[in-house]
Amino acid sequence: MTTDLTAAGTDAGTDPRTGAGSGWTDRPTTPDGWLERARQVATTLAADAVERDRALAVPTREVALLKESGLVTLLGPAELGGGGQDWTTALRVIRAVSAGDGSIGQLLGYHYLWFWAVRLVGTPEQVAAVEEQATREAWFFGGAVNPRDADLVITEEEGELVFRGQKSFSTGGRISDVTVLEGVLHGTGNEGKHIFAIVPTDQPAIRFKGDWDALGQRLTESGGVVIDGVRVPWAAAAGYVETPQGWEFQPRVYNTLNVPLIQIIFANIYVGIAEGALGTAATYTRDRTRPWPYTPDLKDSAAQEFYVVETYGDLQSKLWAAESLVERAATHIEAINAHADTVTEGERGEAAVIIAAAKQVAIDVGLEIGTRVYDVTGARATASAVGLDIFWRNLRTHSLHDPIAHKRAEVGRFALLGELPEPTWYT
Amino acid sequence: MTTDLTAAGTDAGTDPRTGAGSGWTDRPTTPDGWLERARQVATTLAADAVERDRALAVPTREVALLKESGLVTLLGPAELGGGGQDWTTALRVIRAVSAGDGSIGQLLGYHYLWFWAVRLVGTPEQVAAVEEQATREAWFFGGAVNPRDADLVITEEEGELVFRGQKSFSTGGRISDVTVLEGVLHGTGNEGKHIFAIVPTDQPAIRFKGDWDALGQRLTESGGVVIDGVRVPWAAAAGYVETPQGWEFQPRVYNTLNVPLIQIIFANIYVGIAEGALGTAATYTRDRTRPWPYTPDLKDSAAQEFYVVETYGDLQSKLWAAESLVERAATHIEAINAHADTVTEGERGEAAVIIAAAKQVAIDVGLEIGTRVYDVTGARATASAVGLDIFWRNLRTHSLHDPIAHKRAEVGRFALLGELPEPTWYT
Amino acid sequence: MTTDLTAAGTDAGTDPRTGAGSGWTDRPTTPDGWLERARQVATTLAADAVERDRALAVPTREVALLKESGLVTLLGPAELGGGGQDWTTALRVIRAVSAGDGSIGQLLGYHYLWFWAVRLVGTPEQVAAVEEQATREAWFFGGAVNPRDADLVITEEEGELVFRGQKSFSTGGRISDVTVLEGVLHGTGNEGKHIFAIVPTDQPAIRFKGDWDALGQRLTESGGVVIDGVRVPWAAAAGYVETPQGWEFQPRVYNTLNVPLIQIIFANIYVGIAEGALGTAATYTRDRTRPWPYTPDLKDSAAQEFYVVETYGDLQSKLWAAESLVERAATHIEAINAHADTVTEGERGEAAVIIAAAKQVAIDVGLEIGTRVYDVTGARATASAVGLDIFWRNLRTHSLHDPIAHKRAEVGRFALLGELPEPTWYT
Amino acid sequence: MTTDLTAAGTDAGTDPRTGAGSGWTDRPTTPDGWLERARQVATTLAADAVERDRALAVPTREVALLKESGLVTLLGPAELGGGGQDWTTALRVIRAVSAGDGSIGQLLGYHYLWFWAVRLVGTPEQVAAVEEQATREAWFFGGAVNPRDADLVITEEEGELVFRGQKSFSTGGRISDVTVLEGVLHGTGNEGKHIFAIVPTDQPAIRFKGDWDALGQRLTESGGVVIDGVRVPWAAAAGYVETPQGWEFQPRVYNTLNVPLIQIIFANIYVGIAEGALGTAATYTRDRTRPWPYTPDLKDSAAQEFYVVETYGDLQSKLWAAESLVERAATHIEAINAHADTVTEGERGEAAVIIAAAKQVAIDVGLEIGTRVYDVTGARATASAVGLDIFWRNLRTHSLHDPIAHKRAEVGRFALLGELPEPTWYT
Repeated sequence: MTTDLTAAGTDAGTDPRTGAGSGWTDRPTTPDGWLERARQVATTLAADAVERDRALAVPTREVALLKESGLVTLLGPAELGGGGQDWTTALRVIRAVSAGDGSIGQLLGYHYLWFWAVRLVGTPEQVAAVEEQATREAWFFGGAVNPRDADLVITEEEGELVFRGQKSFSTGGRISDVTVLEGVLHGTGNEGKHIFAIVPTDQPAIRFKGDWDALGQRLTESGGVVIDGVRVPWAAAAGYVETPQGWEFQPRVYNTLNVPLIQIIFANIYVGIAEGALGTAATYTRDRTRPWPYTPDLKDSAAQEFYVVETYGDLQSKLWAAESLVERAATHIEAINAHADTVTEGERGEAAVIIAAAKQVAIDVGLEIGTRVYDVTGARATASAVGLDIFWRNLRTHSLHDPIAHKRAEVGRFALLGELPEPTWYT
Repeated sequence: MTTDLTAAGTDAGTDPRTGAGSGWTDRPTTPDGWLERARQVATTLAADAVERDRALAVPTREVALLKESGLVTLLGPAELGGGGQDWTTALRVIRAVSAGDGSIGQLLGYHYLWFWAVRLVGTPEQVAAVEEQATREAWFFGGAVNPRDADLVITEEEGELVFRGQKSFSTGGRISDVTVLEGVLHGTGNEGKHIFAIVPTDQPAIRFKGDWDALGQRLTESGGVVIDGVRVPWAAAAGYVETPQGWEFQPRVYNTLNVPLIQIIFANIYVGIAEGALGTAATYTRDRTRPWPYTPDLKDSAAQEFYVVETYGDLQSKLWAAESLVERAATHIEAINAHADTVTEGERGEAAVIIAAAKQVAIDVGLEIGTRVYDVTGARATASAVGLDIFWRNLRTHSLHDPIAHKRAEVGRFALLGELPEPTWYT
Repeated sequence: MTTDLTAAGTDAGTDPRTGAGSGWTDRPTTPDGWLERARQVATTLAADAVERDRALAVPTREVALLKESGLVTLLGPAELGGGGQDWTTALRVIRAVSAGDGSIGQLLGYHYLWFWAVRLVGTPEQVAAVEEQATREAWFFGGAVNPRDADLVITEEEGELVFRGQKSFSTGGRISDVTVLEGVLHGTGNEGKHIFAIVPTDQPAIRFKGDWDALGQRLTESGGVVIDGVRVPWAAAAGYVETPQGWEFQPRVYNTLNVPLIQIIFANIYVGIAEGALGTAATYTRDRTRPWPYTPDLKDSAAQEFYVVETYGDLQSKLWAAESLVERAATHIEAINAHADTVTEGERGEAAVIIAAAKQVAIDVGLEIGTRVYDVTGARATASAVGLDIFWRNLRTHSLHDPIAHKRAEVGRFALLGELPEPTWYT
Repeated sequence: MTTDLTAAGTDAGTDPRTGAGSGWTDRPTTPDGWLERARQVATTLAADAVERDRALAVPTREVALLKESGLVTLLGPAELGGGGQDWTTALRVIRAVSAGDGSIGQLLGYHYLWFWAVRLVGTPEQVAAVEEQATREAWFFGGAVNPRDADLVITEEEGELVFRGQKSFSTGGRISDVTVLEGVLHGTGNEGKHIFAIVPTDQPAIRFKGDWDALGQRLTESGGVVIDGVRVPWAAAAGYVETPQGWEFQPRVYNTLNVPLIQIIFANIYVGIAEGALGTAATYTRDRTRPWPYTPDLKDSAAQEFYVVETYGDLQSKLWAAESLVERAATHIEAINAHADTVTEGERGEAAVIIAAAKQVAIDVGLEIGTRVYDVTGARATASAVGLDIFWRNLRTHSLHDPIAHKRAEVGRFALLGELPEPTWYT
């Protein structure tokens, strides 16, 4: 599924997996250990998340941190030096990192998706090759994928596939080692043959516009990209095998699963952001919020005011409910992964519905928390230096990826009529 | 913990555990089997739940159904003919039954609590004796317990404890085989020694007023009771052991757990009621609701209207979140049960907080569902014959057991300050 | 517009307008005076509203009270003994009465609509005749009108119109003096000529089924009616004038206003019910609710608990907002009434949109109040004897008259696109 | 109430009241005319509100625009060249301007308050003098007032009052002509004599720190100020009159009104911001939002999608309700102004309660609109260039001025107990 990627990966001089030079000299071996590692990363990220957000800083050092911590290869096979963890742990890690910095949580989440994508659409040989190389070399994946619009066209030239065109949005861009490209094969008609390939990011035929400047998730390098002649051999076209009739796409049943997987990643990013908001606010309330003096219910500290504790309780309860639902959704993913090649439409559809529900609940509670934390931190918490708005902005921005009203309708059609959502790139 | 209870239990002629005469001739052996059994019971109950509610019908037949189905002895040891199940299953069963009839779900939930209560406060001998007899004879437990007010006074007469007084509220009353009594030992001062004992319900010294007539949960026999001279030996006083200094209460660490246990039962009743509401509404919408003709978005059926499916999706998503949180709360209970005698204050407190959160979320979503189902069933669904209001009434009524604002505050004190709720009879 | 209605009206022996025999011996002369009168009526009604509701009592005495108070002829010309008030006052009166008893508020509101309907569709002669007779004789109007279904067919026999068929729903029924009938002229094709006429209620050809038994608004006599040969002369067909070509309908521009008028009546009923709920709850909280003992925020009375006052404040604020919007909507109605024959589509449409908005807000806040009042009155307020649920039930029932989602969509099309709702019987 | 202020006011060369050089050559003469003028100003402001917000631009040109438009002297007597309008119009003008730019709306609102403040606390002579000079010279007022902390100390030196200290927050600062100072007279004990005076802004003894950098309302010049020796004669101390015993404060009854006045200004700023958000979003949805392709409810444009119009309808309805309540609150202010010297505690208190309610509702709906507009504009609307977040940020920031939970409690104490809020600087 890849061309020669020897040049990809991080600089020589540091071992990307052991993080020589960083504080971490070992790798966790248990799910809890990895989760604790993710929380340490989140703490580090949170320290300057607001400053980096304001500066639209390219997250070079943050991706390095993900590599040093070992999180980048969390899903890689243990025997190749990866974490050997499952998606349950990966999703919790995404959540934990997102609590510290929603942008970096998103970058990591998409990275896991692209790392995993070869399993969804690749041939057995491609799966083996990509997992090995990506794990050993600790690739960080970016993606230029947008199946809704046919914006990259692929022509066959001299037996190779050549990608040309533009994507309005990509993710990971400049700070990735490899990029997942998606395009439509020229002349394949209305629906078009979408072909995916992994290519080295650092090549002249790929130019990132660096034009991402949005309300939130500002450090995700989500800007446009110009592709002008990226070449890959047919053997690197994901899922294509050579047959007497030429190269043919022989998909796995499982390949329709890609979108629920990205949607559950979204839900975990949102819950993580909401956790970050509530935790950051609680620290502020405890340390800095003053009690209100003009009331018969006068208290010594804001943290004793009834409305303050009631509000925290209300928000925490709702957040735990959202967390519990994303955890439940993860069990559907694990069940499917356990027999990926024989997954049924019903299993896939039910997972998609539960994930859609989890996403909706996560968005609702996250936006509520992002707004209401100010009620319990107070007027001075609006100082730009505090930056408590980063959570609302991050969540508000990414939660618009696809309209939540239509997600609700999908869940509703299932609840009311038993209908499963038709697999699209967004359901 | 009991006096002679030989006379308690169901009528001779039917075997209370195998339900001879009913459709069930066997007992489930797996958690899923029990859950399926509970759903069958719920379906039966739902068929006339509204009529019985209107009639304030004494639930004699419904308790018989619980016995016939085997659900009554679900928590009893398998070797004694019980279901041998854990609380995770018991809570799911309560939820499932509540979906069909919230009143009967409450009766069953309280029954499990009283069945279990001997483990919380009894001596090892009492535990063994009660579990054996209650399982073998399929006792249905009622309770006259209200520790907030010292309304039953216990005097010691001729070496026995004699209970006298009134309770404003009891549960189960007339339709129970045995009743858990709670009173305060005369002359034990301000705080008072609360003593619990299990006594046969059918005795002249117990008179149920039959005065329960409320908005909802109407079939729970929750009216007042007059206790006039119920006698129990000291050996039946829960947790009391004879010492050289007389009878002394030697509690287990675990006994403070009683209230989180009842609170998680509440949360499951509420989620169950909400499930019943949504499912009943969905059937109505599919079968009877007409599409709205005066709109540019004209559809062939109401179930295709966008607002209808969006509303169902919104409600279903929130309900799944509440369900997931009550399930998560159950894992805390199981963890505590696994080492009941060494449970720490922290474990108990954290469980109480999670349970409080689950209860709050369950109430919020349940009331929302109870109200909004009408928006998607329509004006004709308000006919008394439809009875869709039973869900809102049941939930609204029981959810006032203790003020939810104070539950939120408890969760908030934990989230904000790490404070655990002080164990009271309501936290 | 009427046949001979001499026999209609109240019993001889009491003067229906001065209410001889009641406590009221005079008539208010100012809007504030009428509003105060309406509040007195509401207080009387509230005293046994719950008992009458449970009993499905035919509101004979309550309609008599409306007559005795003079409210029935509020809109009638002063010179004929009517109140001479405008719709602003009428709507406030409906609101005030609904606060005491939503059913009677609805009966009065519909009565005003039918009293006024002749202005919307009648000829000048019909307007004069009906207003005079209805005022002098203090008719109470009922209606059997449902333009959505063509369920009454009118045939012409011997130069008269004869109505035959059934209506599933009517309002006012048995307790009215006159009934507004609506039917479709036989053989007038797909859309059908809808003809309205006022007829004496007490005649053999009208039989009320007495089958109204719903969740709320139980005293509105809204059951089915069988019409079997009600005869009216052509001259009584509202809006029909004799021309050389026969009887022709010559509508006023204004006649499209009927539905916004009924919709603003609805909104005022809802706000009134919500006021009743909040006021009744406040009395209960002050007099009977106990403070919660298990809290560090212990108070001497429930009315000092922070969550209690905060909840009342939240609900009161929202209720005032709803009230203010229905008041604003009324100014649109008055503006239109001021030049009824030259009202434009734009004025009519904008009024319809504001009224739709007011209705939505009133429903939202009313349902919230109807549910949340229990949080601040407590568990004992669920006793059937308290009957605090009547507000939620009344509001929930009537607010389904037409789907509120479509009303929101109408407001949205105006806000987003400037589109006015097409006049239908429901917009 | 002022020292020599001849030097204050705008630059020579332009007539501040007629706005020579601007597009406006005349002054409106009716309330509607002024409102239309305010809308024109808002349109101008909206054009670059986002850019100025990002740049933390000092609003020099925007204040000039307020002067050119005549809005600055709206409340000034017509015979002196002012607009001669009442507070009803002033509040609508604040709302309209806030719809275009919340910061400038706030500056204008505070300006009106300070302009008016002399009526609240001044002597008749001071009132006459200030109104005349402020109107003729079109002063723009700023304020350094924060009665909660005694942060400016006044000493009497050589018969003059000398202010020294710091304020953490002021409003208007650098861009004002005159500043209202508030301080505590040295040695007047615990409660302290608060003295207000109007002084020229441009003097060496006043130094604005220019340190305002917050989430929203970024152009209000709300930073800190250092006062180091501002001198005013006793005659300029608001409300002080010379008596045989020295200078004494002889307050009007009315002076307790200041805070409800500022609170109703707040509520109008919030409603205005919400209007701006909804209107801006609607334009975006119409012009740029794409319909969602992956749905059975496929539409040609986003503005036809049901959830889109339903959302707009829901938000518009709520916004109209909030608007109507702020309008109703204004009638209380007008009623009080009509007899300012004989206003009772009850009138003042009831006005305060209604205003508190209006503020709460305005905040609730404004935050909801500020968040939900994204659901109906879509992902691309998060581009920084769009700047749709300015509304949420502006509202979220200012709405924390004092805790809304305590405002709700105030309303609740009135609704439940009939208690009026005790006049403080925040009620």
